[in-house]
Amino acid sequence: VKIRVYYEDTDIGGLVYHSNYLNFCERSRSELFFQKGVSPINDDGHFVVKHIDASFMKPAKFGDIIEVKNSVIQMKSASLVMRQTIYLEEITLFEMDVTLVFLKGEKITKIPSAYLTILQG
Amino acid sequence: VKIRVYYEDTDIGGLVYHSNYLNFCERSRSELFFQKGVSPINDDGHFVVKHIDASFMKPAKFGDIIEVKNSVIQMKSASLVMRQTIYLEEITLFEMDVTLVFLKGEKITKIPSAYLTILQG
Amino acid sequence: VKIRVYYEDTDIGGLVYHSNYLNFCERSRSELFFQKGVSPINDDGHFVVKHIDASFMKPAKFGDIIEVKNSVIQMKSASLVMRQTIYLEEITLFEMDVTLVFLKGEKITKIPSAYLTILQG
Amino acid sequence: VKIRVYYEDTDIGGLVYHSNYLNFCERSRSELFFQKGVSPINDDGHFVVKHIDASFMKPAKFGDIIEVKNSVIQMKSASLVMRQTIYLEEITLFEMDVTLVFLKGEKITKIPSAYLTILQG
Repeated sequence: VKIRVYYEDTDIGGLVYHSNYLNFCERSRSELFFQKGVSPINDDGHFVVKHIDASFMKPAKFGDIIEVKNSVIQMKSASLVMRQTIYLEEITLFEMDVTLVFLKGEKITKIPSAYLTILQG
Repeated sequence: VKIRVYYEDTDIGGLVYHSNYLNFCERSRSELFFQKGVSPINDDGHFVVKHIDASFMKPAKFGDIIEVKNSVIQMKSASLVMRQTIYLEEITLFEMDVTLVFLKGEKITKIPSAYLTILQG
Repeated sequence: VKIRVYYEDTDIGGLVYHSNYLNFCERSRSELFFQKGVSPINDDGHFVVKHIDASFMKPAKFGDIIEVKNSVIQMKSASLVMRQTIYLEEITLFEMDVTLVFLKGEKITKIPSAYLTILQG
Repeated sequence: VKIRVYYEDTDIGGLVYHSNYLNFCERSRSELFFQKGVSPINDDGHFVVKHIDASFMKPAKFGDIIEVKNSVIQMKSASLVMRQTIYLEEITLFEMDVTLVFLKGEKITKIPSAYLTILQG
């Protein structure tokens, strides 16, 4: 997804507030589902973030149009790791490896194969 | 409630982003419930915002400790109007009249008298 | 602008948190500038919200694609009122009249005619 | 700092939206400065987040009063690592190691010793 940086995303420092890069990445993960006509929340369960390893390389600025790109870099039966990178044109602004588990009710459960397919783009 | 203005509340203009004053007011309404040991969301239903009339007088700044004060200015069986004012010491920064209705499920219903008492402080 | 509702826009009630409709409207105002290749913040000054009169008709839900439409309904030398309406297809979810003033430094000043033109779409 | 979880912090899943734990930690870092009567932003410069390694153990819920505790676990001339842990009473909800660098203008610079002292509590 391409995302415009608005006022609400910035802070007094004049740049994007640090935790909003995580939001941009979450929008991109949700959009993978929406693009397939599937809601990320449904009767089968939903993904939850368990771990994040994130590097802030360069800041995004008000008005920038940034882009999030995703790849699944590790897969187990009940968890997976996605690498999500935020670019401004060719420049890498942010990169994180996010570990997701799949919850049904409050219980971690095997990721349905249909959802793996969705997250793999 | 007294509320500290943090980075996340500000924007590139260096001041509090305008819609965050509504959040501060909502925190204050919720806190009225929490202070009585009651959750604002429970089996009886919960309040929903129907209308807001808000004036932005002076901006709050990063680090400010502001205070929200509330009074119920109108009451009907299924809705009420609260006036919520945000102060920095003696200076009025923001004031809004918010109309709340009480929902049970998706239906507007009579406000339980216990909740009126809570909102009246 | 068309806007997708993501997780971050919702709250425990399962719908969009009320103040986020103001953010969606602000994105739309900023986008009017960006579409003309102009930043809403520049050496000439920038707009600030002075007053909001907002009605919450129906809630937006996770995954909805909503649309903000704008019209200038009143214009004075140093302030203007925009009506911003949020739709889900043909359904009106939210409408507000927002009064904006133009600040240069910390001083309210005459709105440059170029910016009036931009806000009038 | 102790922090109440409000509506705005939750999402449709009924729990705190994941990136808000980073905000809570940032509030706590800023509060270390405010408690000493110093603004985290001043003529000397300010801290910027470069890296985050975060584990989400258990979710915080609407109405919870959580607490952030901090310790500096590594220190170099131009960067430091803080461990920030969020508790609900004795239960650990979230823990992150955040690497901060000190910027003067746009340049990474030596952390003033006064600020090291502040961050060490």
